[in-house]
Amino acid sequence: MKIVVVGGTGTIGSAVVEKLKSEHEVIVASKSTGDYKVDITSLVSIKQMYKDLPDIDAVISTTGASHFGNLNELTPEQNEIAIESKLKGQVNLVLIGQNYINEGGSFTLTAGIMMDDPILKGSSAAMANGGVASFVKSAAIELQRGLRINVVSPNVLKESEEKYGAFFKGFNPVTADKVANAYLKSAAGAQTGQVYRVY
Amino acid sequence: MKIVVVGGTGTIGSAVVEKLKSEHEVIVASKSTGDYKVDITSLVSIKQMYKDLPDIDAVISTTGASHFGNLNELTPEQNEIAIESKLKGQVNLVLIGQNYINEGGSFTLTAGIMMDDPILKGSSAAMANGGVASFVKSAAIELQRGLRINVVSPNVLKESEEKYGAFFKGFNPVTADKVANAYLKSAAGAQTGQVYRVY
Repeated sequence: MKIVVVGGTGTIGSAVVEKLKSEHEVIVASKSTGDYKVDITSLVSIKQMYKDLPDIDAVISTTGASHFGNLNELTPEQNEIAIESKLKGQVNLVLIGQNYINEGGSFTLTAGIMMDDPILKGSSAAMANGGVASFVKSAAIELQRGLRINVVSPNVLKESEEKYGAFFKGFNPVTADKVANAYLKSAAGAQTGQVYRVY
Repeated sequence: MKIVVVGGTGTIGSAVVEKLKSEHEVIVASKSTGDYKVDITSLVSIKQMYKDLPDIDAVISTTGASHFGNLNELTPEQNEIAIESKLKGQVNLVLIGQNYINEGGSFTLTAGIMMDDPILKGSSAAMANGGVASFVKSAAIELQRGLRINVVSPNVLKESEEKYGAFFKGFNPVTADKVANAYLKSAAGAQTGQVYRVY
């Protein structure tokens, strides 16, 4: 399969690319590095990506920014980061991409454990994650041409414990490799409308 | 208690107002009619509402628009309606209102059954509903001054069967009165972080 991994240079994305590259043609897309540059907060950039990368069988998104901060200081403007990037950015990869990718192709998006199991400073990210998960479940029943869609909701990564562990006290970190398996299951399998909780 | 019902002129909102008005001081807020005019898609309008209506104990939101349409025709622009209104509008009622309403006060927002049980043409609404529900669960663990927050997720209403029944074939409509009880439980009770599914 020809697979584009949007956010393929990040911690999860790199593990996904590593897992896929022996058996598939993988294109790493990212905002600033990788094989192809795309900004998911721009409709023009997303459309251009699909035009520039024809014949795609699977789109994997392991990207999307959110602002982390105390709720009592969270401004509507800070909340826009998750709205524009993690939520709308990923949803627009599907709304636009459904008209471009190959018949029988798939989308796999990314949510996160805080949508189910909230953490301090995580309200904006939780909002985006919950929106992505419900969108995926709903989009799955309507996609045409045999297209499929799933979402992976990872716990905090073992690889990111030093950076993010303080936000996730008492959570059980999972390896990026285990999380990457969920993306493989989605892209290489036949399921649709699933939320893969790697907790 | 002094309670503002944003969207208090709609089908659910009217039932909520009816249920609350004998025991509470209820202010009906709405975009075009009611006691007070507010546009939840405008930060300025939300801030002005909280300034104009001091000493509020409970904010109930029974409002929020979404575009309903087939996924393969759903444009990012149409998806903005749910983003701006049902999702951001309701979230901003909380982000701004947390600094204004009385100690021990509460917020009760509105989601909808399609976040759990998808319907055709409902992907954009599902997205907004899922975002609102996850935001509420997360915000509940951080609200200060004893503030609480819950969300009601209603099934299609018996009262709206003629208008919306075609979207919800095989669903079991619930009465607006039963749905209104969930808002009463939220505002008059002591629970927080709950998703009241009235299915």
